[in-house]
Amino acid sequence: MPLKGKHLIDPDQLTFNEIHEIINLGLDMEQNPAKYSKVCEGKILGTMFFEPSTRTRLSFESAMLRMGGTVLGFSDVTTSSVTKGESVADTIRVLDDYADILVMRHPVAGTPREASQYSTVPVINGGDGGHQHPTQTLTDLITIQKYHGEIRGLKVAFCGDLLFGRTVHSLLKTLSRFPDMEFILISPPELPIPEDLKTEVIEKYNVKITETDSLEKHMAEIDILYMTRIQKERFLNQEDYEKLKDSYILTNSLLENAKQDLIILHPLPRVNEIHTEVDRDPRAKYFEQAKMGVYVRMALMALLLGNIEIAAPTLTLKVKNGTIMTKFIAS
Amino acid sequence: MPLKGKHLIDPDQLTFNEIHEIINLGLDMEQNPAKYSKVCEGKILGTMFFEPSTRTRLSFESAMLRMGGTVLGFSDVTTSSVTKGESVADTIRVLDDYADILVMRHPVAGTPREASQYSTVPVINGGDGGHQHPTQTLTDLITIQKYHGEIRGLKVAFCGDLLFGRTVHSLLKTLSRFPDMEFILISPPELPIPEDLKTEVIEKYNVKITETDSLEKHMAEIDILYMTRIQKERFLNQEDYEKLKDSYILTNSLLENAKQDLIILHPLPRVNEIHTEVDRDPRAKYFEQAKMGVYVRMALMALLLGNIEIAAPTLTLKVKNGTIMTKFIAS
Amino acid sequence: MPLKGKHLIDPDQLTFNEIHEIINLGLDMEQNPAKYSKVCEGKILGTMFFEPSTRTRLSFESAMLRMGGTVLGFSDVTTSSVTKGESVADTIRVLDDYADILVMRHPVAGTPREASQYSTVPVINGGDGGHQHPTQTLTDLITIQKYHGEIRGLKVAFCGDLLFGRTVHSLLKTLSRFPDMEFILISPPELPIPEDLKTEVIEKYNVKITETDSLEKHMAEIDILYMTRIQKERFLNQEDYEKLKDSYILTNSLLENAKQDLIILHPLPRVNEIHTEVDRDPRAKYFEQAKMGVYVRMALMALLLGNIEIAAPTLTLKVKNGTIMTKFIAS
Repeated sequence: MPLKGKHLIDPDQLTFNEIHEIINLGLDMEQNPAKYSKVCEGKILGTMFFEPSTRTRLSFESAMLRMGGTVLGFSDVTTSSVTKGESVADTIRVLDDYADILVMRHPVAGTPREASQYSTVPVINGGDGGHQHPTQTLTDLITIQKYHGEIRGLKVAFCGDLLFGRTVHSLLKTLSRFPDMEFILISPPELPIPEDLKTEVIEKYNVKITETDSLEKHMAEIDILYMTRIQKERFLNQEDYEKLKDSYILTNSLLENAKQDLIILHPLPRVNEIHTEVDRDPRAKYFEQAKMGVYVRMALMALLLGNIEIAAPTLTLKVKNGTIMTKFIAS
Repeated sequence: MPLKGKHLIDPDQLTFNEIHEIINLGLDMEQNPAKYSKVCEGKILGTMFFEPSTRTRLSFESAMLRMGGTVLGFSDVTTSSVTKGESVADTIRVLDDYADILVMRHPVAGTPREASQYSTVPVINGGDGGHQHPTQTLTDLITIQKYHGEIRGLKVAFCGDLLFGRTVHSLLKTLSRFPDMEFILISPPELPIPEDLKTEVIEKYNVKITETDSLEKHMAEIDILYMTRIQKERFLNQEDYEKLKDSYILTNSLLENAKQDLIILHPLPRVNEIHTEVDRDPRAKYFEQAKMGVYVRMALMALLLGNIEIAAPTLTLKVKNGTIMTKFIAS
Repeated sequence: MPLKGKHLIDPDQLTFNEIHEIINLGLDMEQNPAKYSKVCEGKILGTMFFEPSTRTRLSFESAMLRMGGTVLGFSDVTTSSVTKGESVADTIRVLDDYADILVMRHPVAGTPREASQYSTVPVINGGDGGHQHPTQTLTDLITIQKYHGEIRGLKVAFCGDLLFGRTVHSLLKTLSRFPDMEFILISPPELPIPEDLKTEVIEKYNVKITETDSLEKHMAEIDILYMTRIQKERFLNQEDYEKLKDSYILTNSLLENAKQDLIILHPLPRVNEIHTEVDRDPRAKYFEQAKMGVYVRMALMALLLGNIEIAAPTLTLKVKNGTIMTKFIAS
């Protein structure tokens, strides 16, 4: 199996087929949880969080427990208290004795990659600084697949802080690899998408990109609206944050002309950028998205551990308007 | 089943029959632990402790593990590090995806109730500020039932800080619902029972209450002696604390005239209010009480999860002087 | 069974036969993990860490999980937040209700021993101040047994901080009980072995001890080289630390004249005292040592819990140069 024994540091490492394998398995796990309740029996997940991220950690832990595995780890120690000055290489060569698969969150970009070079067990990047967070991207993708049936020919709008937003960068790059995608980038002029990322996806995948500062303007054409929080912690200057923090607030009236099968996503936590009145709109899928994060992590871990083998042709589950369609496609 | 899928925020929510169901099941779990060792297999308890309370947390965790379930959670993060400014409603709508039942400890009174309004899984209040702590009350009740056979016609003395003592208030209110109870309230004049609570239980349940500042005076008539710690953390003025902290110290000589079937309880931790010489007295049941806390939490969680169904008439276990008597009563 | 229900506070408590039982079982667990994957099903390990020690904690947790048991506990609370001023006796009488076996780490020497006097379940000392750390000693012993086949007639060198090094003191004392051992003690003059410990092992076990400040001098005769870190946290004076910290650095060139079956150990974490170039030398066994720590803790816990019974004559596994030899010896 291609995924067995691999590490996942950057979504770019996954082939198009591997992404589909993970998503399709995750969708089946959601539909038939009992079928998978023991597939990781006897396996230990090590959660190595060198900075706290309670949701990410609990999502991984829940995923492993739901497959009959167990969990150990640490959740908010500082680097020094674990390592007492030793190298990442040494630390990981000890930690990989305690578990069968590791998820590492680290404040320093690149540390999970370095760790993976010394680990004898699969390492999953659970977020490294402002760099990568591949399982958030997989969470976004499985939610789109579940509610749009297929990731193809979609108009996806990203709204908010496109300069610092790690989840936006990663999802944008990965979605570019899917057929016929088009992006609408909505941000205040101060927080545009980084130029090099834009150039890369346009040149490499030839996607169409539209930039605007208006959330309203393209609302009627959008298939996916990906809202993000303006992250206070990224601003050196409190005044700048105050000025920009309420740039976009999604309300029911803004959604009046939106498509009936629009889906609204958000990596959470949300502050003010989506009014709570929107929560009751059936197009609001951000809480479902958090839930799908557990299933996609189950699928990922089961595949990296090699506890589930998927033979090509892989199963595609198409879920649209509540009806589940399944078909086999050649991988 | 009435309890399946419910939340437990306040002991008042439980009917008299529900309390008996929980206690009787807990007593059977203590007697026959092997019978219940897998009743929660596949279930996940989420321990959401927004302030630390190591004993309460471990008691819940032990309870779930002893039923074959698993546990995830956090134990002492501050609110902000989990929520990053989001609402309780949003937080709980994410956390309820990770577990099948949640226990929440929170410094702000009312937060567990608010959380329960948004959760799709049962929420148990693990203590909210100085407000409620329903599983401590259930722990007190199961211990009384185990060592007195029936909670009826008992003279119960509460001694110590009756003003701030959350466990006293909650147990007093709940015991008032049992038949023919009588209370003796022993406190320094500075720390009396709150007037409104006294009025409430007298008017609603017509119980007899005697107030005194002497631990000695009524010793010979008492069936249950509930000792409490003077809580340093409740005093604004260190001097006031110093003056009151050793108001009552239970010793062997004080117990000379006490009943042979008296039972002495304490929610723990104890500081000086019970002399260690009393520990060897067979009437001292405070460590047994901590142990019964695990069994009553097992019973509660199994019933809320619906993993155990209890049909009326329910089983009553009567344990007195080491002999176990069982009978079926109509509920 | 001799070990069932016992505590382990000090390696001295273990008879020579008991040490062999634990080591031999640990070696078999490493060779046949599947055979032991459920021997602690239904058992709960309580990890009571009154000071953080992430590796020791995770090693114990992994050990219990690999035998099908479960884990609860705390990892870095201060004493006060658990005990609120109560005695060790009271604390342990509550904690022993939550678990079937406890491991306690405590900053104050003697606390695990005191706890064991009140606990109804086995207590393992996970390190108390600069005092004892018996499972590190068992880890060192199982690694020597695995790579040298038998602990007999070996020349063991200890290098580094021999004054404060708790692991050195404990291993030296325990190795003295094995037949025909000889020690070479390598330290800067400022950090010699304590005089009373030296006197004790010489008088009691009649071992030969050579003291030197040169790592090079005896290299050719050594069977086991036990390197240690100069611990910054032990120095009151930063200058003294700076002067001594790089006293010994093991390099490939230093190892040129060493025996082919030398094994190099280190309790980890390592800072500079072993150059990373040595990691690729097959004689470097310090990462294998960390791994063996999990198996020896599995064996210890299974025996203390009585979940595995070993009948005399006990099984001795001899592992040398990759070949496993087994034979039965009378205990």
